[in-house]
Amino acid sequence: MQLTEERLDATFTALADPTRRAIIARLAKGDATVNELAAPLEMTLPGVSKHLKVLERSGLISRSRRAQFRPCHLERAELDEAVEWIEEHRRLWDERFDKLDAHLRDIQDGRTGKGDA
Amino acid sequence: MQLTEERLDATFTALADPTRRAIIARLAKGDATVNELAAPLEMTLPGVSKHLKVLERSGLISRSRRAQFRPCHLERAELDEAVEWIEEHRRLWDERFDKLDAHLRDIQDGRTGKGDA
Repeated sequence: MQLTEERLDATFTALADPTRRAIIARLAKGDATVNELAAPLEMTLPGVSKHLKVLERSGLISRSRRAQFRPCHLERAELDEAVEWIEEHRRLWDERFDKLDAHLRDIQDGRTGKGDA
Repeated sequence: MQLTEERLDATFTALADPTRRAIIARLAKGDATVNELAAPLEMTLPGVSKHLKVLERSGLISRSRRAQFRPCHLERAELDEAVEWIEEHRRLWDERFDKLDAHLRDIQDGRTGKGDA
């Protein structure tokens, strides 16, 4: 459980920066090298590398150890985990409002004598 | 566009902390006062208030200005925006792999003479 919390901390921290989101958006279209990622970002290579390290630590991306240009690769599983956490709480929220809706309908049915029946 | 980026920064930053996620999880089940939120967290009220301020700034929660106990309320729209961002890039990622699948099938069909037909 603790581990999941730490992973969610790292994933959401990684997502909380526009440059890192731009990198993820680029990698969603295909693997890329640091040079390819840096080109549209108007940022120095060390600057991009710093962001890549945050993304790597979060598990959102991985980098090939052996290839000469070490292309970056988006790891779908970590995005899944972040979405699942949010979805779970949206679902609870929705259920609460569905119940409220049903309750209000009951009250209204009571008032109108169940739709004039 | 800039505004959206800033809102996503704030939303993901707010989500990147286990106490704040616990508060969101609690509020998904219903509005609550600061005292109610603090009770299960083993945290001082000022500590909880600090987290609530981060959540309020992100727009993930709102607080009634007039009620005596200022109950906290989860704002669904901000969660939606965070999920939509992630979903968009998961979709791009999936499309890429669907294309790769189709390409591999084409190659295989070419090899086997389109399934022995």
